[in-house]
Amino acid sequence: MRDVYVAGVGMTAFGRHRDRGLKSLSEEAVRAALADAETDPGRVQAVYFGNAMGGLVTGQEMVRAQAALRRTGLLGVPVVNVENACASSSTAFHLGWLAVAAGAADTVVVVGTEKMTSPDRDRAKHALASAADLDELAELEARVGGADESRSFFMDLYAETARRYMEASGATVTDFAAVVVKNRRHGAANPHAQFREAVTVEQVLHSRAIVPPLTLFMCSAIGDGSAAVVLTSRDRLPAGRPRIRVAASVLTSGYGRKETGPQDMASRRAAFRAYEIAGVGPEDVDLLELHDAAAPAELVLYEELGLCGPGEGPRLLRSGETALGGRRPVNPSGGLLAKGHPVGATGCAQLTELADQLWGRAGARQVENARIALAENGGGYIGSDSAAVSVTLLERE
Amino acid sequence: MRDVYVAGVGMTAFGRHRDRGLKSLSEEAVRAALADAETDPGRVQAVYFGNAMGGLVTGQEMVRAQAALRRTGLLGVPVVNVENACASSSTAFHLGWLAVAAGAADTVVVVGTEKMTSPDRDRAKHALASAADLDELAELEARVGGADESRSFFMDLYAETARRYMEASGATVTDFAAVVVKNRRHGAANPHAQFREAVTVEQVLHSRAIVPPLTLFMCSAIGDGSAAVVLTSRDRLPAGRPRIRVAASVLTSGYGRKETGPQDMASRRAAFRAYEIAGVGPEDVDLLELHDAAAPAELVLYEELGLCGPGEGPRLLRSGETALGGRRPVNPSGGLLAKGHPVGATGCAQLTELADQLWGRAGARQVENARIALAENGGGYIGSDSAAVSVTLLERE
Repeated sequence: MRDVYVAGVGMTAFGRHRDRGLKSLSEEAVRAALADAETDPGRVQAVYFGNAMGGLVTGQEMVRAQAALRRTGLLGVPVVNVENACASSSTAFHLGWLAVAAGAADTVVVVGTEKMTSPDRDRAKHALASAADLDELAELEARVGGADESRSFFMDLYAETARRYMEASGATVTDFAAVVVKNRRHGAANPHAQFREAVTVEQVLHSRAIVPPLTLFMCSAIGDGSAAVVLTSRDRLPAGRPRIRVAASVLTSGYGRKETGPQDMASRRAAFRAYEIAGVGPEDVDLLELHDAAAPAELVLYEELGLCGPGEGPRLLRSGETALGGRRPVNPSGGLLAKGHPVGATGCAQLTELADQLWGRAGARQVENARIALAENGGGYIGSDSAAVSVTLLERE
Repeated sequence: MRDVYVAGVGMTAFGRHRDRGLKSLSEEAVRAALADAETDPGRVQAVYFGNAMGGLVTGQEMVRAQAALRRTGLLGVPVVNVENACASSSTAFHLGWLAVAAGAADTVVVVGTEKMTSPDRDRAKHALASAADLDELAELEARVGGADESRSFFMDLYAETARRYMEASGATVTDFAAVVVKNRRHGAANPHAQFREAVTVEQVLHSRAIVPPLTLFMCSAIGDGSAAVVLTSRDRLPAGRPRIRVAASVLTSGYGRKETGPQDMASRRAAFRAYEIAGVGPEDVDLLELHDAAAPAELVLYEELGLCGPGEGPRLLRSGETALGGRRPVNPSGGLLAKGHPVGATGCAQLTELADQLWGRAGARQVENARIALAENGGGYIGSDSAAVSVTLLERE
């Protein structure tokens, strides 16, 4: 398979775009990505569109991409609608990467778009529940206590993870708050972020209780947005910019078992397979975007991605290494907690941030001299693990 | 890219499986396909799952495959949820083919499953409407007169196509009825078919009027079912059977324009690209499964796939060439009209039929000495064309 490169990226601001639908959001991201790639729609040979809950929230199921993109000039080529919960558009990215790597297409567009806000505010919450196996939803809710209709059931799952992690690692709620403080500080420097105000540990701890130990600011919010990535072969890249190669694109799924050991977690398997493919180790990664859908997830992922050993997440966070200015910033975009998490758009948005960083155009949140960047995007819940995990390594040549 | 082969196929009977869900249906098809391929789940390296309307009908959106397949032993590898309306599982097949062709996986499973029946019988009908761009649904309904709540809006679209085709070709309603008679006769020999009783032209013409000129028997029905295909590389095929190679797998989409000329139709573009890739012409194809979601579509597709010239569809049908026993049987399985059309399962079911035919195990509906077989699967509606079309050529070596 041949090498695949990022030719251009684009995204909308993330947030509550109440007056905009899948078309308007997708068009803005696609237009920006094509302009960035210095290409036009006529040169695009395939489209991979990630969206997680358009059927349940907007009613547009079945041909989401064709409807969303019909005014972009991109149709008439293979168009694939991809769903994998919160990992929908990183899954789409994986397929786009494969098409170019295989030589089936020279230039492809990958889009992730999600519209979560709607006049019926319960829709997104109910849709989120479908990221678990609905046949065992009642059992899961009974286990984690997710009977409160005011929140997504997933926050109950994250709270359970948080409590287990506190026991295993000695992490405190203040550590979780510190994740939020860090990512909100990063997001304050990101014009695309949904939340652009820094917060203090006190503010996080005293924000509305969601489910113990999680407070409102520790949970990613409902939002809308779109992000797009243009992938191409080396000889078709625009000139005058460093080349960004996809050093690894790994997709996997949880086993669906009731118990999954730490070594078997999908995010760990995906990351270590990606390191192997790229011929690097976690110590070589200069910056990361990872799936902090709730604050504790960031610390758990430090360990699963091999940034530190078991139980060392809190120490790594406190060291400052993962903050902007540290040795290996995590979620310089603000992550899901600050940048926002319109679920199907998140995978492409992570890659948009990494490309901006590797091209040195991330402004006030620039990570200096970054060469190797990692994105981890998780989606859904099956058994006791993520239903889908994608890990991507990008390398500036 | 390397050659890709069909290692095994399996499917459920199509029909109204009121007591069975996505899990039960998928499990039966997957088990049969793996047994046919003489492989076990542990050797499968990726899964592509096509489903069109699970979100709207069953509520299971986002992680449909992971929920449906969690007891099959297939999870833990890349699992991709694919949607493309009625072409969902042929789109999934295209992705699975690409993964093996690229060498990204050696053995993959492609599944198409649809559950259309539900306690709320309106769900499937409403879900079907989402195979068009919902933003222009009202305009489309006004154009084709689809205000009757008792049927899918798509039958109004097919009726419009039928009227135009009658004008252009001189086809009569009796010709449309003759398509049904042929395909019902084929389906009577197919143990997996939803409708296994032969019908007469009179019976078709006098079945309940749906929208002129279409009667009930000219329209595919609501149904449930699953079909699965195992793809692998040449060196991993089970011994003792002829090899079936994927000679071409082409996916495309309509342009989304308001008017599309005959040469620009997605099915025509896909078919002629497939012929080019495989180095054959329409005259070399020994049998076909094509997307007769309503009877007139079969005649239109004869022309778009190049089986005959413009306006010659009725003559080709009347010649008997496309019936079992003829030179080039079309829809030996019974097609969507008789075998049934659980939409997301149809693409894989077409390929299951073609593989059974090429392996010489199609029983009473066997096409003798078939070597090259074509499947055409269309999905959705965008502008004035299908939103997605897949054309696959299989060749027995």
